[in-house]
Amino acid sequence: MATPPPASARHLLPLSLGLFQGALLLFFALFATYDEPSAAATQEEDGTRAVEQLPNLFPLFQDIQVMLAVGLGLLLAFLPRYGLSALAHNFLLLNVSTQWALLLQGVRHGRLRLGLHNVLAAEFAAVTVLISVGAVLGRTSPCQLLAVAFCEVPVYLASEWLVVTQLGVRDVGGTITIHVFACYFGLGVSKALFGTERRPAHPKETPTPRSDLLALVGTLILWVFWPSFVAAPCQPGDAQHRAILNTFLALSAGAVTTVVASSLLESGGKLSLGHLQNGSLAGGVAIGALADVPITLAASLALGSLSSLVCLLGFRFLTPFLARRLALHDQCGIHNLHGLPGILGAVASVVAVLVASKDTKRCQLSHADGSGVGGLLLVLG
Amino acid sequence: MATPPPASARHLLPLSLGLFQGALLLFFALFATYDEPSAAATQEEDGTRAVEQLPNLFPLFQDIQVMLAVGLGLLLAFLPRYGLSALAHNFLLLNVSTQWALLLQGVRHGRLRLGLHNVLAAEFAAVTVLISVGAVLGRTSPCQLLAVAFCEVPVYLASEWLVVTQLGVRDVGGTITIHVFACYFGLGVSKALFGTERRPAHPKETPTPRSDLLALVGTLILWVFWPSFVAAPCQPGDAQHRAILNTFLALSAGAVTTVVASSLLESGGKLSLGHLQNGSLAGGVAIGALADVPITLAASLALGSLSSLVCLLGFRFLTPFLARRLALHDQCGIHNLHGLPGILGAVASVVAVLVASKDTKRCQLSHADGSGVGGLLLVLG
Amino acid sequence: MATPPPASARHLLPLSLGLFQGALLLFFALFATYDEPSAAATQEEDGTRAVEQLPNLFPLFQDIQVMLAVGLGLLLAFLPRYGLSALAHNFLLLNVSTQWALLLQGVRHGRLRLGLHNVLAAEFAAVTVLISVGAVLGRTSPCQLLAVAFCEVPVYLASEWLVVTQLGVRDVGGTITIHVFACYFGLGVSKALFGTERRPAHPKETPTPRSDLLALVGTLILWVFWPSFVAAPCQPGDAQHRAILNTFLALSAGAVTTVVASSLLESGGKLSLGHLQNGSLAGGVAIGALADVPITLAASLALGSLSSLVCLLGFRFLTPFLARRLALHDQCGIHNLHGLPGILGAVASVVAVLVASKDTKRCQLSHADGSGVGGLLLVLG
Repeated sequence: MATPPPASARHLLPLSLGLFQGALLLFFALFATYDEPSAAATQEEDGTRAVEQLPNLFPLFQDIQVMLAVGLGLLLAFLPRYGLSALAHNFLLLNVSTQWALLLQGVRHGRLRLGLHNVLAAEFAAVTVLISVGAVLGRTSPCQLLAVAFCEVPVYLASEWLVVTQLGVRDVGGTITIHVFACYFGLGVSKALFGTERRPAHPKETPTPRSDLLALVGTLILWVFWPSFVAAPCQPGDAQHRAILNTFLALSAGAVTTVVASSLLESGGKLSLGHLQNGSLAGGVAIGALADVPITLAASLALGSLSSLVCLLGFRFLTPFLARRLALHDQCGIHNLHGLPGILGAVASVVAVLVASKDTKRCQLSHADGSGVGGLLLVLG
Repeated sequence: MATPPPASARHLLPLSLGLFQGALLLFFALFATYDEPSAAATQEEDGTRAVEQLPNLFPLFQDIQVMLAVGLGLLLAFLPRYGLSALAHNFLLLNVSTQWALLLQGVRHGRLRLGLHNVLAAEFAAVTVLISVGAVLGRTSPCQLLAVAFCEVPVYLASEWLVVTQLGVRDVGGTITIHVFACYFGLGVSKALFGTERRPAHPKETPTPRSDLLALVGTLILWVFWPSFVAAPCQPGDAQHRAILNTFLALSAGAVTTVVASSLLESGGKLSLGHLQNGSLAGGVAIGALADVPITLAASLALGSLSSLVCLLGFRFLTPFLARRLALHDQCGIHNLHGLPGILGAVASVVAVLVASKDTKRCQLSHADGSGVGGLLLVLG
Repeated sequence: MATPPPASARHLLPLSLGLFQGALLLFFALFATYDEPSAAATQEEDGTRAVEQLPNLFPLFQDIQVMLAVGLGLLLAFLPRYGLSALAHNFLLLNVSTQWALLLQGVRHGRLRLGLHNVLAAEFAAVTVLISVGAVLGRTSPCQLLAVAFCEVPVYLASEWLVVTQLGVRDVGGTITIHVFACYFGLGVSKALFGTERRPAHPKETPTPRSDLLALVGTLILWVFWPSFVAAPCQPGDAQHRAILNTFLALSAGAVTTVVASSLLESGGKLSLGHLQNGSLAGGVAIGALADVPITLAASLALGSLSSLVCLLGFRFLTPFLARRLALHDQCGIHNLHGLPGILGAVASVVAVLVASKDTKRCQLSHADGSGVGGLLLVLG
């Protein structure tokens, strides 16, 4: 919207999107049904249970939708003249990626028995795209963004299958499968598109108080609903309760630590809005891999604080370094918000497994439900 | 707020509103009670069940409140200098119309046993007013808007009774009873107020990037919570699950189709924000009449796409035509967002009934719960 | 952020906050555990019940989080150049106060068995801080705001214990314990900080249409989710249903009355945005003490109307009087929004108890569940 696309690209967007919608329609007509007893009377038990959980799952689903469509869109709108496009492109990518993930889910299983849990899984795939494009925001055409979506979703689904199903890693909040993956995919896209080109900062790329205000509202929306994002894939009951508490504590400690660290890092002791917008959320990224595990409340607080600190140090020192040395362009700082805290979360997860397995040997599996053993359940021995 | 009302009208607004509040208070004092077992021990079963469904219904109710007060208000705020008034008038009309609908519900039954489901039904009545005034936005005084509300709510309640109770039309999402009705009521109001007067576009009526950004946020809020709007009146269980899935798919397909169609319709291949703000929601309008019916997922996708297309074609060709020929003033384009997609949904509903009744004859009512027969259940013979 | 803090204060903020986070972490490491059966097998019944209520409580908790982080933040952003700081400071205070309240809860009981209900109680403590600082908004440094938080939370917890546990006052919506308390605490802070200094209005302190629009969005978010705030501490079932209905009616009547009264009070019959932003919420403040009590629907309407009226009269006459006579500085008018309607609610609560006890004698306790007796349950004789 900001810059008119070249004449050749003018029809590329509607054509490719139109073809995609047609293909999706055809696939749904041939292979998709409702996931319910009346559609498959043989699997009544599963179907009934899914519907019984609907009143619990649907509010979480709506919270996540608000995060992705409104919260993330506003957070990306921090560039003053690019705000409208950021919001619109985010919305388009959310829809296309979700549909594309549903189609690929169906292709993999030969058919699609659609329930709210499928849609939720597809939205998680879409999140990776929305994170990745943060690296190239404001410099790419809608067609380029769509190309990213079409490539990233299948790679995500494959990597998620590998990490969760094959390796047995427990990652309810998507720390590794969503955040770390999306970060490095996005940086790869940035490198592929811009190579070693060093572009001076465009005047449009300097936030104004107004665009910063809306971006901060976006941050707050993400911050508020992050526990829903982590709790949605959890088992109802104690695990979900723990996920909510751990995530809340990590986010809250992260927000306070952000203010502390930003005041120390910035000259004049002023609080940087860019820091606040990103650092407040870093705790949520890191806690994902461990949220449903009883890692103790103090560990959640510590992990939240540490990840915000790492995020801000990344903004202060690593981003300028990478831009100087590798000419790596990362518009929204996704490496600081998703990459570094994600890696921290993964490391914490390994530590938790090691500690838990040690404890377990000592306690002779005192936790009857086995929930004491969690995190990155790699085959350790 | 934008223009000071004439001296004579200055006291008309507080007087009429004050009288209305007094009358409402009197009516509630005399005829209204809580809908609960302790208030009417004889109907314990109904009362108990209503309260048992509270945890499921209340989150949906809150979602709908966000849509009406925040989402719709921001969407109407696309006119730059009228934004504040649009938000404030929308809020006032929401309150007055809801209270008025509660009062009329009570008058009809001789008394009011108030529960959350009554409030929800009253809010649906208020929606019609909020849609209708979109046709005359920015040109009407608060008193005129209130007059519209006082006239429209009783007509809506009568028409809803006629269509749903008497004709037996199934319309969970209010496609016919809310959207089509409100659209033509609003156009009638516009015609009645402005006649054949042709006014040139006021400079205040050209959206700016800032007002467009807030209106887009309004659209996103409506888009996100639309499934709650459709699911709230549904039977819990499979029907509600279907309603959520069908509505989600229609909205998602509609959003993508909007981008496709807007790129093709606009010169230069640019995406029009007006199109995005309205077209993304057209799918939700059309699917309402069919949402809880198992019309197949592909049909939901197709209906969503088609209604966005119809909506955009309306903006591009029908609105200028109507303005030129009939001097019809439709500020927000409610005919394109609510009228055309609503009619499309009604037609789709008739088709679904015809197909279903044919299927039913063939299958000897294989669907035990009868949910296969739905849509516009006119007496077909 | 608006004005750089003096050099001496530069390190005070990060130092004090950093120490606080360290102390919190230490306390949680030593004394805090998850509130669940696996953590304390002896209290299985309570633990299980808390988790079973999670699906009902969590959506309300998220609604309240939206109110505090987004709604209240935007409402405070009505000062144009202070908007960003208001939003950021509100967010910081929310986090620090909640954590501080959790720590104090733990200190009081010797240990902390953390569940979602504890977090909710801690957020209610944080609300008092967020309300109080409204009196000194835009004139205080972050350090001063933090000092307010550190003083106010323990005083609130003590007063809440006194009023609710010792005196047995029923106050689900926090009318007395939260709103009245926070108002007079805030006014005391204002007096202590500014004494009798009379400062002319700063140009930054005049709202613009843009800042007013965002503040109105904040009001609408608070208005929409207020029933969740009141319903969260209620017993599930009839009491919660009543709380939702009473709060909804009080808010709705309050909104309409605000328009009526504002049109009459303002010269030219124009609607004041400051009035709308505050008056619409006054009904929610007043109804809190009575919300779960069957005070009749008409009483809810009347209380909502009356409290909005009192709030607007306060803005029109009392605030200028207090500023002139007592040099009392109340930037956001918290005395009008929280003080006066809160006192009104408390008085209504006493009246309800007197009426109920009279009724009870007459009816020989016809309400088996005793819910007819409520409100300000002072020992009356």
